[in-house]
Amino acid sequence: MQNFTFSNITKIVFGRGVEERVGREAAQYGRKVLLHYGGGHIVRSGLKARVEASLREAGLEIIELGGVQPNPRLSLVREGIELVRREGIDLILAVGGGSVIDSAKAIAIGVPYDGDVWDFFAGRAQAEESLPLGVVLTIPAAGSESSPSAVITNEDGWLKRGYTAIVMRPKFALLNPELTFSLPAYQTACGVADMTAHILERYFTNEPDVGFSDQLCEAALRGIIQEAPRAIAEPEDYGARANIMWAGTVAHNDLLGMGRIEDWASHGIEHELSAIYDTAHGAGLAIVFPAWMKYVYKHNPARFVQFAVRVFGVEQDFFNPERTILEGIRCLEEFFRRIGLPVRLQEADIPADRLEEMAAKATADGPLGSFVPLEKDDVLAIYQLANA
Amino acid sequence: MQNFTFSNITKIVFGRGVEERVGREAAQYGRKVLLHYGGGHIVRSGLKARVEASLREAGLEIIELGGVQPNPRLSLVREGIELVRREGIDLILAVGGGSVIDSAKAIAIGVPYDGDVWDFFAGRAQAEESLPLGVVLTIPAAGSESSPSAVITNEDGWLKRGYTAIVMRPKFALLNPELTFSLPAYQTACGVADMTAHILERYFTNEPDVGFSDQLCEAALRGIIQEAPRAIAEPEDYGARANIMWAGTVAHNDLLGMGRIEDWASHGIEHELSAIYDTAHGAGLAIVFPAWMKYVYKHNPARFVQFAVRVFGVEQDFFNPERTILEGIRCLEEFFRRIGLPVRLQEADIPADRLEEMAAKATADGPLGSFVPLEKDDVLAIYQLANA
Repeated sequence: MQNFTFSNITKIVFGRGVEERVGREAAQYGRKVLLHYGGGHIVRSGLKARVEASLREAGLEIIELGGVQPNPRLSLVREGIELVRREGIDLILAVGGGSVIDSAKAIAIGVPYDGDVWDFFAGRAQAEESLPLGVVLTIPAAGSESSPSAVITNEDGWLKRGYTAIVMRPKFALLNPELTFSLPAYQTACGVADMTAHILERYFTNEPDVGFSDQLCEAALRGIIQEAPRAIAEPEDYGARANIMWAGTVAHNDLLGMGRIEDWASHGIEHELSAIYDTAHGAGLAIVFPAWMKYVYKHNPARFVQFAVRVFGVEQDFFNPERTILEGIRCLEEFFRRIGLPVRLQEADIPADRLEEMAAKATADGPLGSFVPLEKDDVLAIYQLANA
Repeated sequence: MQNFTFSNITKIVFGRGVEERVGREAAQYGRKVLLHYGGGHIVRSGLKARVEASLREAGLEIIELGGVQPNPRLSLVREGIELVRREGIDLILAVGGGSVIDSAKAIAIGVPYDGDVWDFFAGRAQAEESLPLGVVLTIPAAGSESSPSAVITNEDGWLKRGYTAIVMRPKFALLNPELTFSLPAYQTACGVADMTAHILERYFTNEPDVGFSDQLCEAALRGIIQEAPRAIAEPEDYGARANIMWAGTVAHNDLLGMGRIEDWASHGIEHELSAIYDTAHGAGLAIVFPAWMKYVYKHNPARFVQFAVRVFGVEQDFFNPERTILEGIRCLEEFFRRIGLPVRLQEADIPADRLEEMAAKATADGPLGSFVPLEKDDVLAIYQLANA
């Protein structure tokens, strides 16, 4: 087990109606708030009006910046940074899913920084400061509500890059599962694939002596696999929605990865898909992860046997580990398919004509991942397996 | 699932040699530190000297208060409060296990409080403030290093009472598994029983729709059951010690109980044993918990079947749930026995002549627990099952 530091200061307030508390929570961090959001959904659902009423009741002044797109764009982040500076805003409130939160995080670290915010994502600077950030979560998926990470897309070259800094953890996050009742099945499923992938990225490690957190990772996966089909079949089932929403946070609040060397190759491989084709991140992960597993399992068959047996209850073939492993990967694909996700590139209408270009971009900054470090040709082979 | 708030600010620094960082961490909270500890073990092992050197190097002035006993006493807490006030101490550093940390927590909330610190434990006051508190953990067991709770024994009547307040969470906790190499097998086992019980208290709930955290609780139990015998058989196995140490924190950092109504009857029932007979808390729990389970399982057989099947892999008898349940409880007893713990009162040399008195004291403030609220006669029956 590796040495580690676990420090997660995000206060999670979870349950029915918790968005009504946003004014009280936000008022602890200032008087002037940037209300950052995506499109019209939060307007139509009445959430925006409820949030604004709570903020005003707590005496906060609201400045708005909407228009965050999936795979949030650097240009809007820069616009937000200027707006926050010009208006003297004290804190940022993200109302939305992972894209909105990530955009808000980038604004929050960009404001006190003298240089260009892309420096952080390009690996040229470390963020030491951040404006305080609060969240009203509407989509359980990215886990960004209590993570120290953000992913931003630079339209200049469609570069999608992640950045992690401890100062980016939100101060508070309000999670009301009722807000997710109206999520379409496909978007729910994409969120489920995202949280599943967050656990898998931590699970596949070469680190020995991580038996306790192996168990936790496997349990979190089983919990998601158990609850997701229910949340999709009965979108207004509070219990199923609540379990999925909490799972999304736990999957990415760092607890499950402590002491482990995490991988994250599949996220890098997926980023090229969503950067070029605007594929939903979760759908891209459902395509990439099984392919990645098929490519790397020979590196540590025992871990893949354990995955198959413990996560999917595969009947172990003690004389043929490979059969057990492949059955485990098949079960993962079947789970993704069952909740309506693609598991091959062509099922997401992604053509195979730019695989080489994507593999080159994905590895432009060096090999991807740590379980098996992947060079360009490895990534290309994985794209091809995803196309098979 | 219940509404909940999860807010755990404790920074965990985990790994080999992390106690050397104590000065750097402590210096963030002041210049004058109360070094609070138990007996001579930390002197003999050289830990105290290492901690002092690190504190001095960071420019901190050290005032000492040793002598914390298992089941920490109110009289020493009061002495600590006076000492801290007199010396103008800025922060408290607990070097030890749960008893030392709990004693330090009580001092930390007692200092800024005008009344008597026992008011908190007697339910007559709520702590709103606390001195900052740091921890160097030497015994994985109580989870007190990142919990908001403390248990103190009032020698006037040998009342052992717990108290929880969010302000009691330590600011930082340094966990080096190497410090636990020298723990005797029995003490290691008692710690294991304590963390096991912390999970069981959360697991046995009437709350529906907690499938995700059920899985996490079961996984944490399996992880402990898997690693504990190894830590006892090979006390200097870093991996086993590290898994057990991290498990002790996760078992009680609140994460596993979120959205659930927790029970805690068994802790109340056990407290009478250790208050009167000074039984090690973990040994008392190993005796009480299986007896509690035998007494209450009919209230929700499905949950006990799930426990047996998922935690111990009991082969389910679909036609006879009770057989499955009792086999699960037997497996728990067998696990405790295997690591060298008593599972009956007489195995811990506890006579049966004061059971009625203990049952009366345990329920003096009202029924115990929430899974099945227990009156005096119920608690007596459980003591008798523990004596069977």
